[in-house]
Amino acid sequence: MSKTLLAMMAVASLTACTAFHAGSNASSGPLVIQEQGSFAVGGKVASTPGAYDNDNPTSRGQTFHGDHLYAFYQVPRNPKPLPIVMLHGAYQSARSWETTSDGREGFQTIFLRRGFPVYLVDQPRRGRAGNSTVATAIEPTPYDQLFFDQFRLGKWPNYFENVQFDRKPETLDQFFRSVTPNTGPYDAGVISDAMAALFDKTGPGILFSHSQAGGPGWLTAIKNPNVKAIVALEPGSGFIFPEGEMPNDMPSAAGTLKPEVVSLTDFTKLTRIPIVIYYGDNFPVTPTTERGQDNWRVRLAMAKLWVDAINRHGGDARLVHLPDIGIKGNTHFLMSDLNNVQIADLVAKFLAEKHLD
Amino acid sequence: MSKTLLAMMAVASLTACTAFHAGSNASSGPLVIQEQGSFAVGGKVASTPGAYDNDNPTSRGQTFHGDHLYAFYQVPRNPKPLPIVMLHGAYQSARSWETTSDGREGFQTIFLRRGFPVYLVDQPRRGRAGNSTVATAIEPTPYDQLFFDQFRLGKWPNYFENVQFDRKPETLDQFFRSVTPNTGPYDAGVISDAMAALFDKTGPGILFSHSQAGGPGWLTAIKNPNVKAIVALEPGSGFIFPEGEMPNDMPSAAGTLKPEVVSLTDFTKLTRIPIVIYYGDNFPVTPTTERGQDNWRVRLAMAKLWVDAINRHGGDARLVHLPDIGIKGNTHFLMSDLNNVQIADLVAKFLAEKHLD
Repeated sequence: MSKTLLAMMAVASLTACTAFHAGSNASSGPLVIQEQGSFAVGGKVASTPGAYDNDNPTSRGQTFHGDHLYAFYQVPRNPKPLPIVMLHGAYQSARSWETTSDGREGFQTIFLRRGFPVYLVDQPRRGRAGNSTVATAIEPTPYDQLFFDQFRLGKWPNYFENVQFDRKPETLDQFFRSVTPNTGPYDAGVISDAMAALFDKTGPGILFSHSQAGGPGWLTAIKNPNVKAIVALEPGSGFIFPEGEMPNDMPSAAGTLKPEVVSLTDFTKLTRIPIVIYYGDNFPVTPTTERGQDNWRVRLAMAKLWVDAINRHGGDARLVHLPDIGIKGNTHFLMSDLNNVQIADLVAKFLAEKHLD
Repeated sequence: MSKTLLAMMAVASLTACTAFHAGSNASSGPLVIQEQGSFAVGGKVASTPGAYDNDNPTSRGQTFHGDHLYAFYQVPRNPKPLPIVMLHGAYQSARSWETTSDGREGFQTIFLRRGFPVYLVDQPRRGRAGNSTVATAIEPTPYDQLFFDQFRLGKWPNYFENVQFDRKPETLDQFFRSVTPNTGPYDAGVISDAMAALFDKTGPGILFSHSQAGGPGWLTAIKNPNVKAIVALEPGSGFIFPEGEMPNDMPSAAGTLKPEVVSLTDFTKLTRIPIVIYYGDNFPVTPTTERGQDNWRVRLAMAKLWVDAINRHGGDARLVHLPDIGIKGNTHFLMSDLNNVQIADLVAKFLAEKHLD
């Protein structure tokens, strides 16, 4: 975006200028944390040829560490055996799973309270894992209204009538400020390599993916058998099919969704673990010219074909379109919607059914 | 750095490929957390003129939220009245205060255990607060060896003999991977604006700054009287003096350190709170050609003049050069060095002395 197009407004912070009262956000009793911390894992080292001169340093003879992921983890007291690893989607960071935009507990703390060790990831080239081995340019791209539509809060400037999103202006402000850019080109291979290294470190665990993380999530499970289940919230791309079983491309008002090919050997690895996919509300199952909604029509349709393919090969995949089971109004951010405890209950029930808790 | 200069090596992760045993990092009993969460605060909204078209979106009529900071906070049970806000330095994120590179607890968890609510910040245009209203380009710049020298682990490739840094290769790998780039131009005004907004939200609190955060830290205290004390770990730039009292520039083997000017009115605001500054070991107080060390010679010298100026105006500032009190071997990262509990004890003693705990 041209900077000359920008009218810059320093706005008064929408947060109230009063002391922050501890306890206001606590949904129940205190959390008892046995251990918490953070680390980097995976990644590459780039080297520049030549000799390093300590007192006149140039790039010669120096190295660069990049393409790792960053993880923050917490282990509750008396933890369940399998940790949950949560991977954010496009334009987001681990922030996606923390406090909701309206200030309630997100999936990080909800699942900690339910006894799971929780690992939150900033994927390679995002957030605190910003060091990318490939260069990029970052422009302040004005996408707020597009996000409002595409993430199905409503059709800008109007919210959907039943939307599970708090309508206070400060909530929308927090939502927009959860956006953070790529610091290098998006690369599902780089992300899944680092995620596979993370699952080496955690041992067997459960992967929660959101949105764009769907694709790297499948690849992670292919690369590391320590992924024992996948809970995919609104995967939007990266649907992989075996050679010879590729469905047709799916045009929509937001562009064409294309399936991606993998070997049958790799695809088959996904048939060995339980997988559940959830989609929210407020998009049609028949074509529409509404860009923000038609996008999700084809994603849901592709996900259905994908689940069918997994199950045809002997797998255990399930797709839940929430309105079909009477859960209405969910946006693209199921894990932070107003009914996120209800969504967590659904997920917990799935994990219990699969003996993963 | 030219990509053609890079020899890319995918290296096997240095972390052991074994299950991660919960509890291995816990320095004592479980943490009892009354509340935890995250939010954005401060920042600007940029607008592009025109009308937004939902079904054919361009930048027209859209907004962009940026230049806020991101904070993750935890409140322990029975918290002390004043929270601690920790602001990282250059090339770093809130990661600086979390687990140390060798896997021990950092200042985040150490001070939580001591009863303080702790807020960790990713400053505007860094980490999870990546949305910048000003564009930038990000190159994979090979600085590892320069950082090794400049952050006083040693003189590459040799560690200082007494260095308070674990010498396992995986520790150095973690250290290098804590680096994350700016996603917009560094701007002490933007950072301190967001920090001032944070202190509106937290209410009265204590600011810990590291390295480059020293400068924005002073500005934050000028902008918001809720900053009740500053603990500055190795401030390296942004030393502000009143008009008419500017010291001379200080040349060094790493460049020239220049003082910065503020109004006497603003400077005087810093005389109303206790301030302590700590510097570590392994740099001389007389000039040397060693770039990595001479850098710190002038920073220490400027900090001494700064402390003198604050106290001359009736303030309460103190500078502690750790080797002078018998604490040896500290790098630039005092809060994660091998003796970080000893450093935390020093800081805690200061806070107690000033009745801030």
